[in-house]
Amino acid sequence: MAKKYVYSFGGGKADGTAKLRNLLGGKGANLAEMAGHKDLRLPVPPGFTVTTEVCTHYYDNKKKYPTGLKEQVNTAIKKIEKLMGKKFGDPKNPLLVSVRSGARVSMPGMMETVLNVGLTEKTIPGLAEKFGSERFAYDAYRRLITMYSDVVMEKSAGIEPKENQGIRHQLDHLLAEKKKSVGAQSDADLSVEDLKELIAVYKTRIKEVLGKSFPDDAEKQLWGGVTAVFQSWMGKRAISYRRIESIPGGWGTAVNVQAMAFGNTGDNSSTGVAFTRNPGNGENSFYGEYLVNAQGEDVVAGTRTPSPINSYSTSDQNDDHITLQQSEPKIYKQLESIRKRLEKHYKDMQDIEFTVEEGTLYMLQCRSGKRNGPAAVRMAVDMVREKLINKETAVTRVTPSQLDELLHPVIDPAEEKQAKFLGKGLPAGPGGASGQIVFSADDAVKWRGENKQVILVRAETNPEDVEGMRASEAILTARGGMTSHAALVARGWGKCCIVGCSSMDINYESRTMSVGGENLKEGDWITLNGTKGTFYETRLPMIDASDENTYFNDFLKICDSIRTLNVRTNADTPEDAAKARTFGAEGIGLFRTEHMFYGKHSEEPLFILRKMIMSKDVEERRRALDELYPHVKKDMKGTMAAMNGFPVTIRLLDPPLHEFVPHKKDALKDLANSLGITLEQLNKRTSALGESNPMMGHRGVRLGVTYPEITEMQVRAILESTAELLKEGKKIFPEIMVPVVCADTELQDQKNIVNRVYAEVKSKYNVKKIPYMFGTMIEIPRAALTADKIAEDAEFFSFGTNDLTQMSFGFSRDDIGGFLPDYLERGVLPGDPFASIDVQGVGQLIQYGVERGRSTRSNLKIGICGEHGGDPESIDFCQKVGMDYVSCSPYRVPIARLAAAQSALANKGSKSVKKGKKKVVAKKKVTKKKRK
Amino acid sequence: MAKKYVYSFGGGKADGTAKLRNLLGGKGANLAEMAGHKDLRLPVPPGFTVTTEVCTHYYDNKKKYPTGLKEQVNTAIKKIEKLMGKKFGDPKNPLLVSVRSGARVSMPGMMETVLNVGLTEKTIPGLAEKFGSERFAYDAYRRLITMYSDVVMEKSAGIEPKENQGIRHQLDHLLAEKKKSVGAQSDADLSVEDLKELIAVYKTRIKEVLGKSFPDDAEKQLWGGVTAVFQSWMGKRAISYRRIESIPGGWGTAVNVQAMAFGNTGDNSSTGVAFTRNPGNGENSFYGEYLVNAQGEDVVAGTRTPSPINSYSTSDQNDDHITLQQSEPKIYKQLESIRKRLEKHYKDMQDIEFTVEEGTLYMLQCRSGKRNGPAAVRMAVDMVREKLINKETAVTRVTPSQLDELLHPVIDPAEEKQAKFLGKGLPAGPGGASGQIVFSADDAVKWRGENKQVILVRAETNPEDVEGMRASEAILTARGGMTSHAALVARGWGKCCIVGCSSMDINYESRTMSVGGENLKEGDWITLNGTKGTFYETRLPMIDASDENTYFNDFLKICDSIRTLNVRTNADTPEDAAKARTFGAEGIGLFRTEHMFYGKHSEEPLFILRKMIMSKDVEERRRALDELYPHVKKDMKGTMAAMNGFPVTIRLLDPPLHEFVPHKKDALKDLANSLGITLEQLNKRTSALGESNPMMGHRGVRLGVTYPEITEMQVRAILESTAELLKEGKKIFPEIMVPVVCADTELQDQKNIVNRVYAEVKSKYNVKKIPYMFGTMIEIPRAALTADKIAEDAEFFSFGTNDLTQMSFGFSRDDIGGFLPDYLERGVLPGDPFASIDVQGVGQLIQYGVERGRSTRSNLKIGICGEHGGDPESIDFCQKVGMDYVSCSPYRVPIARLAAAQSALANKGSKSVKKGKKKVVAKKKVTKKKRK
Repeated sequence: MAKKYVYSFGGGKADGTAKLRNLLGGKGANLAEMAGHKDLRLPVPPGFTVTTEVCTHYYDNKKKYPTGLKEQVNTAIKKIEKLMGKKFGDPKNPLLVSVRSGARVSMPGMMETVLNVGLTEKTIPGLAEKFGSERFAYDAYRRLITMYSDVVMEKSAGIEPKENQGIRHQLDHLLAEKKKSVGAQSDADLSVEDLKELIAVYKTRIKEVLGKSFPDDAEKQLWGGVTAVFQSWMGKRAISYRRIESIPGGWGTAVNVQAMAFGNTGDNSSTGVAFTRNPGNGENSFYGEYLVNAQGEDVVAGTRTPSPINSYSTSDQNDDHITLQQSEPKIYKQLESIRKRLEKHYKDMQDIEFTVEEGTLYMLQCRSGKRNGPAAVRMAVDMVREKLINKETAVTRVTPSQLDELLHPVIDPAEEKQAKFLGKGLPAGPGGASGQIVFSADDAVKWRGENKQVILVRAETNPEDVEGMRASEAILTARGGMTSHAALVARGWGKCCIVGCSSMDINYESRTMSVGGENLKEGDWITLNGTKGTFYETRLPMIDASDENTYFNDFLKICDSIRTLNVRTNADTPEDAAKARTFGAEGIGLFRTEHMFYGKHSEEPLFILRKMIMSKDVEERRRALDELYPHVKKDMKGTMAAMNGFPVTIRLLDPPLHEFVPHKKDALKDLANSLGITLEQLNKRTSALGESNPMMGHRGVRLGVTYPEITEMQVRAILESTAELLKEGKKIFPEIMVPVVCADTELQDQKNIVNRVYAEVKSKYNVKKIPYMFGTMIEIPRAALTADKIAEDAEFFSFGTNDLTQMSFGFSRDDIGGFLPDYLERGVLPGDPFASIDVQGVGQLIQYGVERGRSTRSNLKIGICGEHGGDPESIDFCQKVGMDYVSCSPYRVPIARLAAAQSALANKGSKSVKKGKKKVVAKKKVTKKKRK
Repeated sequence: MAKKYVYSFGGGKADGTAKLRNLLGGKGANLAEMAGHKDLRLPVPPGFTVTTEVCTHYYDNKKKYPTGLKEQVNTAIKKIEKLMGKKFGDPKNPLLVSVRSGARVSMPGMMETVLNVGLTEKTIPGLAEKFGSERFAYDAYRRLITMYSDVVMEKSAGIEPKENQGIRHQLDHLLAEKKKSVGAQSDADLSVEDLKELIAVYKTRIKEVLGKSFPDDAEKQLWGGVTAVFQSWMGKRAISYRRIESIPGGWGTAVNVQAMAFGNTGDNSSTGVAFTRNPGNGENSFYGEYLVNAQGEDVVAGTRTPSPINSYSTSDQNDDHITLQQSEPKIYKQLESIRKRLEKHYKDMQDIEFTVEEGTLYMLQCRSGKRNGPAAVRMAVDMVREKLINKETAVTRVTPSQLDELLHPVIDPAEEKQAKFLGKGLPAGPGGASGQIVFSADDAVKWRGENKQVILVRAETNPEDVEGMRASEAILTARGGMTSHAALVARGWGKCCIVGCSSMDINYESRTMSVGGENLKEGDWITLNGTKGTFYETRLPMIDASDENTYFNDFLKICDSIRTLNVRTNADTPEDAAKARTFGAEGIGLFRTEHMFYGKHSEEPLFILRKMIMSKDVEERRRALDELYPHVKKDMKGTMAAMNGFPVTIRLLDPPLHEFVPHKKDALKDLANSLGITLEQLNKRTSALGESNPMMGHRGVRLGVTYPEITEMQVRAILESTAELLKEGKKIFPEIMVPVVCADTELQDQKNIVNRVYAEVKSKYNVKKIPYMFGTMIEIPRAALTADKIAEDAEFFSFGTNDLTQMSFGFSRDDIGGFLPDYLERGVLPGDPFASIDVQGVGQLIQYGVERGRSTRSNLKIGICGEHGGDPESIDFCQKVGMDYVSCSPYRVPIARLAAAQSALANKGSKSVKKGKKKVVAKKKVTKKKRK
């Protein structure tokens, strides 16, 4: 017996079920489910599905069909004929069918459909008779010819016409001419005679252009349609779509052949789409629209405004329309009941298509419905409450980017579609923002002071711009990557930001810029979509996803009950720490000492720091450090206090010192005066600090080794703050982190300083113990490779994957703008490795680091504090390699909580998840202390 | 029975042999060998050695001696007494002994010696009687007291006097006072009475200063001496010496106690040192000097000029002296015979010490003699010819740095010792050089034109300085590391160079500099020792090791017969290639396309290159590339022709483009004119090319991906040159090498270009095949980690360990000056990882690269072309991981040939050596071609 290639459905029965999605495609499986499942048995027009295996066979065997297919199709057609009481190709009572594609996953618009298959000169009279309208029958025939010649005869045959020379375009042109010649306003104004004449012209043109006649034969049309669907699987658009979405070509598509249901036979017919819940906000209400006397394609064409199915679904455009509930209460009631059965059955919101043919409801499609972020969150929470789904399922129902929508205002999508596009860069800070262009940080501050809304546009930013960045709604730069200064700062604040828009040409002197063929000047309004990296002319309206969405917090609580990774935040001020706590951060994974010097209201600490940097010897430096000490301690203490109860990882001074050297002449003069030296002498010291490649220069632990007094000052500030806060009854647990380590000996060197200062502070405060941990960043390849040695001195590792990615690839994050766009476009790299961890390369080093580190210290605490800590794919990798926590900017904490929960589910049963969620160390340790 | 702690020797017998070096120390083992071996049985004063195990026991057991030691020493003393016919402590016929240290390896001057032990007020008369001189006996006693109080009573007791307050210093002062008071010119002028008085004063002072009396007892003196030697093993100087030389403290020292032989009893006594061959040039002639009526310490003191032992050993200082051969022909003849027996026995040149006591010859020491480079080479070759040693042994007899001495002139060591030291930097180019200071490359060229000898002193150098660098005798920079621009260029030319001397402060305006507390100006003479990295005031004389040393080539031929690694060179011009061939290079491992633009006599290619870089679009760039093409092809073709018969690896353009942008205003103006744009527009394009971290910026294959036309031009030049040279009958085999690769996809991208150009060139020249290989640098960590994927497209790997070290450590080679000196000084790093491969970290990546690369391509050809390719330790690592070749600058090729041979011997039997030396690929391939 031949293999089963054809699965029939209809009449309360079906050969297949929803589970056979791989074999029947999404559409076919759902049609079978709706038609045949005992809980549903919905009114689906009968039909059959040709399996995806036939598609695979077709391409594996030089486009030949398997033996037995023809017979199985014929048998299936007979079943439809029986259920419909019609016959395919019969002049009296003809059966018409639709032929549609249906792959395992939806590929919207990528593949082909042919309707009204089976209509021929011979069967037209039967159809006209059935619906009492010759015009309807000829119009259906015209539609068939148009679709068929386009899809089957041209595209499927591999003919590639020039632009505007395609057969469909030509036929549409003939239709327009005809309408013009008879003075018809719309298609409906054409008479039967007009249609007949047009059909004749169509057929002639088809013969001329394509060299073949339109097949006026039901059987030929059917097989032409089926083959066209299979052909379309290897069409250019489909192939490129699959490449982008990573869909294997080997999956193939199924073909669905189904009896036609006509929504366009008159006013008692209609067609519609609906969602079982509101996809815009998640409310548990039936939501949809329909068109009277129309076919599906008319809805898509958008020439008529659809009507709401019920009063809940009305909008500004259609609040004067009559609803389906009003016009067809019985049909509506039937739909309402189907809605409930579908939700109960599928346990998810469904997107359904239906057609009413002369008062009879037919279900044409059902599938899981697309929804926006707020809706996804609300539905997940509601469905758990309704006991429709469990918590695990709820966690999988919201994507990280959907959750992100709740954290930022976004441009109204309808308005964005029509806006004048200016340019595209890297999406460095999500959400939307509008503002007036300013070209300097000073102007940003000034304009903001005048209550203006500004967007700071710069070639690139540096620490001196921070105040202006803070004053801006958003930041737009021409250079830099996802981890450039602008991107890092903006993301830390959850601010909209686009970087590396290299098509932008800024002229600071004339305060103008040109981009996308437009010339803009200071004060012009622009709008940024920081989620996509695109920006537009003028001010566009925003949609605000409320911060106070209680569903948001309830959903994250569900996530927390499932995840095993801890989530910390990167924060450098008490304010950021407090903000991050409201987002659910369980400690600070990265406190960057140097950030306290950027963008403060008081410039004093930065000024003293600069003095310290410019010191000519250790005595001068020690004096400056003493002056700096109270400022540093105040910031550290405040931040630790704000994180009371949670651990705080403090990274010792990291960047090369010359990063703090002022660029402005005035600032340089002040500094020279304060140091009692000439500007020339200062310039000399400055240039001595200059480096060819500062990213690999004198920074991090290298500063600590050459200037041990700098380490000493910071460690003292940490331990004294801790001692004082403990005396206040707070639960404080600092983790001292050494950056840029490449050898275990560096860590030993710094540990000696820590031990010495620890003894001094302990005796000063007269306490027996000050809890702290000593650890290191793993951000240099050599550190990962020698992690076994390093773990002998480090109690924790924090992977700094920004630098690790830089060094592993040899990519300077500030300079990738010159080549990364080309790399991504030409597929040389699959993605920006600074956005998501490069598992293939950098991932190996992380794995070595984790394994080797734990080989010499089994209880080594391991986390990540690079920008990747807020990236869902990277979080999944962190889970897999067995890290204890991830740390990310405050606004990414909710995303990380969700991603961690999803990763825990995805890796369920693996070693990395089994051990369960770690307790936050600070709590444990402090508890111990209490017992004393 | 107690363990054997004491090994006696003397009277033609010995308990030990030379093989017991670890137990007896070097001196003790050789004394035993000389005294006891049947082929030698030399006249060694009898004695015994206390083993190194006693030293270890002493320190492991709170400075207690093992049980039985005392008895064994007493027995050994009895044996000496018997052989000498004297008694230890006997007033009539006293035995005196020396007590000397002797570790496993020589630690010159680090440990202590006491002579004349056993001399007391009681035994003085016996000694006086024996040599018929009361004065001699009292003088010996004075010497004993001086040494003993210093070594045993002060140092060994751990007393640390202030400077110039040590007991020896005080006694010397008393001696000087005495001499003054009696009007004595020299020690010899003091009478017996004077000495007696002095001895009394000595003893009083010792009691005062050290709180103890000098022990006037033979037994006490002996044990005091033995303990002092063991104590000195843990002395500060010894510990620090061992740390530097990596000698384990656990080895311990032995103590040698030996009957005294006096060379200072009168004119028929003498003492001397000799070498069995000339250590200064290697000639097979007996070479040495001696002093009549003197002890060893008198020779060291250098107050008298020693006499030559034979006419061959005369020098300018002593050509009027009578030789030992003339004065004591019998003794000399005896020595000559000993010399022959020692060489035959030890199969190496020996350094011997002897004493003649009243006409009787005693051998006090023999050991392998130190020698300079030319001598080492000549001896190795001669000894092979004499069949004294085999080739394998010969290869181990010359160190790479000794061989290097033959390649460069060096400062006369005697003069260097006394020169005024100015500063120290990194030794970037070996050899010595003197010249007048100039502070600009232009001046260097100008002064050179006036026939002046100049040294270019700069903060750092850049490509525009190359012409001036070439004109200079040497280069001295204040910044940069071992792989900075100056270092790379100088090393390529074999030119003396010191970089990164940060203590140097240059003022270009006033044309002065200050360093080492001195102010120097333009035109002042200085002298550089590029091998050590030190430099000095004024002009110092040089010693020239001739290039035309035939021994040099003969020695390298011996090396070639043993090594299995191929040795190639890094060369970028036909001249360098030719030079490298004379040094024995077997191909070019690195031809740097960009080097053809530096320091040419014609600036035209550089000018066109600059135009290419500044092109605003692909059309402009293509035009410039077409213009550039003939220049690039000419250089490539010339170099390949010069390497006829050997493979040439050509690296595609590597550095970031902006490295070629001119810095001088004139050059910028010319360029702007030629491009038909304003200077402002040019500056804009220039600044757009600027990068924050160019080392990790838009360079290497990244240029090839974004500007495929640049790759295309280069590949065309390579393949057309090859086609043309093949037609001329040459044997050409180019290897196209892609730099800075981090992903296999980059290589695929470039391979497509190569394939396309290959097809075009093949058809243009109408040939069936043009031989070439396609491969890549492995210099980015990610490339090493994903080498399995990369080897699918690469036929060869060349490890670029400069960049690999930079990225693995996160060290910018141009910026390490800020911290590396501190790192090395404080032992945070054991050495400069740019000088010798960091096996622990970078080595792992290399190993991964080799293993993974060969896992997907078993015949993958693998080499190294970084600066490490000329470093002996790194070469040994390359051998161990199984590379096929190393490549280094022309002047390092001989060093590499030697190092490779030594490594092959050291790794004999391991997998990496077994397979034997690979044939040079070009030869094989071309042979194949011929057969057609």
